[in-house]
Amino acid sequence: MIKTFKIVVLGGDGIGPEVTDQAVRLLREMEPYLSGVKFDLAEHRVGVGEYQRSGNALPESTFEACRTSDAVLLGAMGLPNVRYPNGKEIAPQLDLRERLQLFGGIRPIRLYHESDTPLKGYGKDEIDFVLVRESTEGLFYGRDVVADLDADEAINELRISRVGAERVCRLAFDLARKRNKAKKVSLIDKANVLSSMVYFRHIFDQVAKDYPDITPEHVYVDAASLFMVRKPDAFDVMVTENMFGDILSDLAAGLVGGMGMAPSADIGEDAAVFQPSHGSAPDIAGQGIANPIAMILSAAMMLEWLDHTETHRAAVALETAVSEVLSDPSHRTPDMGGKMSTTQLTDAVSSSLQKIL
Amino acid sequence: MIKTFKIVVLGGDGIGPEVTDQAVRLLREMEPYLSGVKFDLAEHRVGVGEYQRSGNALPESTFEACRTSDAVLLGAMGLPNVRYPNGKEIAPQLDLRERLQLFGGIRPIRLYHESDTPLKGYGKDEIDFVLVRESTEGLFYGRDVVADLDADEAINELRISRVGAERVCRLAFDLARKRNKAKKVSLIDKANVLSSMVYFRHIFDQVAKDYPDITPEHVYVDAASLFMVRKPDAFDVMVTENMFGDILSDLAAGLVGGMGMAPSADIGEDAAVFQPSHGSAPDIAGQGIANPIAMILSAAMMLEWLDHTETHRAAVALETAVSEVLSDPSHRTPDMGGKMSTTQLTDAVSSSLQKIL
Ligand SMILES: CC(C)[C@H](C(=O)O)[C@@H](O)C(=O)O
Ligand SMILES: CC(C)[C@H](C(=O)O)[C@@H](O)C(=O)O
Repeated sequence: MIKTFKIVVLGGDGIGPEVTDQAVRLLREMEPYLSGVKFDLAEHRVGVGEYQRSGNALPESTFEACRTSDAVLLGAMGLPNVRYPNGKEIAPQLDLRERLQLFGGIRPIRLYHESDTPLKGYGKDEIDFVLVRESTEGLFYGRDVVADLDADEAINELRISRVGAERVCRLAFDLARKRNKAKKVSLIDKANVLSSMVYFRHIFDQVAKDYPDITPEHVYVDAASLFMVRKPDAFDVMVTENMFGDILSDLAAGLVGGMGMAPSADIGEDAAVFQPSHGSAPDIAGQGIANPIAMILSAAMMLEWLDHTETHRAAVALETAVSEVLSDPSHRTPDMGGKMSTTQLTDAVSSSLQKIL
Repeated sequence: MIKTFKIVVLGGDGIGPEVTDQAVRLLREMEPYLSGVKFDLAEHRVGVGEYQRSGNALPESTFEACRTSDAVLLGAMGLPNVRYPNGKEIAPQLDLRERLQLFGGIRPIRLYHESDTPLKGYGKDEIDFVLVRESTEGLFYGRDVVADLDADEAINELRISRVGAERVCRLAFDLARKRNKAKKVSLIDKANVLSSMVYFRHIFDQVAKDYPDITPEHVYVDAASLFMVRKPDAFDVMVTENMFGDILSDLAAGLVGGMGMAPSADIGEDAAVFQPSHGSAPDIAGQGIANPIAMILSAAMMLEWLDHTETHRAAVALETAVSEVLSDPSHRTPDMGGKMSTTQLTDAVSSSLQKIL
C-alpha cells in the first residue's frame, strides 16, 4: 500500500524559489528511504510575479490546488516595491490563511548553537519554545479596509471570535502535551486594558480546564516581550493574537539567528501551509546565498504534520540532520556571518541525512 | 525673581511611594543649589488604595491638581489582584493620558554598563535610543469597551487620527533634532497590512518634509522587534502607535536592565507626567529594595522639560550623577542582581550629585 501525499509547492518571489528548491531536493532524496510513501510535488504560480503577469497574485487554479492538497510548501511572497493600488503589499499568504482558515501559525524557536543568539549565556537547545499565533482574525481582521488618506481618522478592528480563540487555544494545549517539556501554555494578552483580551483570556481559561496536565499562565504582551530577551527559557508554548504573534515571532526568531532560521506552519482543520518566517529578501535574490534552514525546517514540520509513521521518521531525521550540521558554526550562510552558499549548506544537510535514514 | 514650579507627586501603589520618595528627596537636595528656582511639591491621592477607600482611583481634586501643575511625578499604579468589576486593572495613568491629552510617551533607552544588557557585545552608551509612543489613541482607543463574555466575538478599535498622528510625529522629529545624534526618526508601522498604518505613514511622511535635516525611515513593527535585539544601535528616535509602543518599550527596557532602569515621560501640550516604566511590583513592596533609578531618571526628564536654565542644569547633573554611580556594577538593587537597597543606591546618586552641582 503506497500513500501518495499531494504537496503543492509555491516558490513565490525573491529568494522564495531558491529556498523551496532545497526543500524539494531533500524531500526527493528522502523519498526512496521511506517505505510506502510517495510525494507528488507540483509547482504552482503565485505572488508578485503572477500578479504582474495576470493581475491576480493567487490564481483560482493555484488556490484550488492548495485547497485539495495534503500540504503546501511556500517560499516567500511579496516585494517591497510592488504594491496594490491601496499601498499595501502583495501578500497572498494572508489570503491563504483566511480562505483556508489556517488559524494556527506555529512558530518553533530553537537555538542550534550559542554563536547564533545575540543573548549572553545561552547554548544549544537552551532556547526552545513554540509560539502559536492566531492567524485568521485579531488585528488582521481589518486588513481589507482601504485607507482614505484625506479623512480625519483611520480605524481598524481587532476581532476575537469565540470559535477563533477556542481552536487556537486548543492547538496550543495539544502542542504542549505533545512537546512534553515544561507542559506549560502562556497566553500572551493585554487583558488589563482591552476587552477583546479579557474575552480571549476567558476562553483560554475555559479551554485550559480540559488539560489538567498542562499549566496555564497569563502574561501581558509588554511583559512577554521583555521576558523573551531576559528569560526566554521560561517559555514552553505561547499562544496569542495575530498581531502580537507577528511581532513576538520575529523577536523570537531574532533570538536564535534571525528570520533565516525560523520555520513556520499555518495549520487549519484540513489544510496546512509550511513556510519559512523570512520574506522574499529581494536584495540577495538570485545570488545563491539565501539561508535554506528555515525552509528546510518548515519541510520537516510538514513531514511531522502529514501524520504517517514514515513521514514522522523523516521529520525527525531531517531535524536531526539540521541540528548536526548546525552544531558546526562554520556551517552558516552570509546572513549569519558565514561563508556557505545555499546549496553548500543544503549539501551538508543532505549528507548528514543519508547517514541517518 | 524666583520661579516656583508646582509639582504634583503621586506615589500610587506598591513600590510607587518608595521610589517617588527617592526622587522627591533628590529634588529637595538640589533645590538650594539652583538659583531662582523653587519646587512646590504636593502629594495627592491616587491608585488602588484610593479606589478601595473612595471608589475613585483618580479623585477630581487629584486630577485638578495635575491639570494645573507644572509637572506630575508618578510612582506606579495598579495591583494585579484588585480589578474593576469588568476585569480590567486599575490604571488611572491611562485616564491621565487621555484627559490631559498626554499624547507623547517618551521612553529613552540607554545602557549604563555592559553587565546590564542581556545582549552580547554592547558597552556603556552603545545602546542609546528613544521610543516615542502615541498615548491617547491607537489600540488603546478601545479601552473603555466592556467585554461581554457570552457574546460570539469581542471587538476593539485601533484609531489613528490626523491630529494624533501629526502631533506625535512632530514630537519625534523635534526630539531627533534636539538629541543631535544620528538625526533619524524611524516610524514603526504595519503599513503592509493595515489601512490605519498606511494612513499613519502618510502623515509621518508629510511631517518629515518639515524636517529636512532629519532622516525619516519606515520599519515594520515585526522587523523592528527583531532589529532591536540584533542591532539596537541602528535606532535613534522611533515613533509608533500606542500598543506597538507599549510592547516595544518594554522590550527595549529589557535590553538595558529591565523596567527598573527605564524612565518615561507622558507629554501633552500643557501638561506632563513623569513616571518609571515599571509597575507597582507588589511582590517586593515595603522591603526597601525597589530600584529607584527609573524614577530618578524620570525626575531628570522632568527637570529637562521644565524649561528653565537652572532646571536644565539640574537635569544634566542628575543624569551625570546616575551615569557615574552606575558605572560601578556593584551599585545595583536586587532586581539587577545587586545587593543595594533603594536608599543606598539613592545615597550614592546623592553624593555624586553634591560634587557636580
Ligand atoms: C508578510 C506579512 C504580511 C506577514 C504577516 O504580517 O503576517 C509576515 O510578517 C508574517 O509574519 O508572516
Ligand atoms: C499599566 C498599563 C496599563 C500601561 C500601559 O499598557 O500603557 C503600562 O504597561 C505602560 O506601559 O505604561
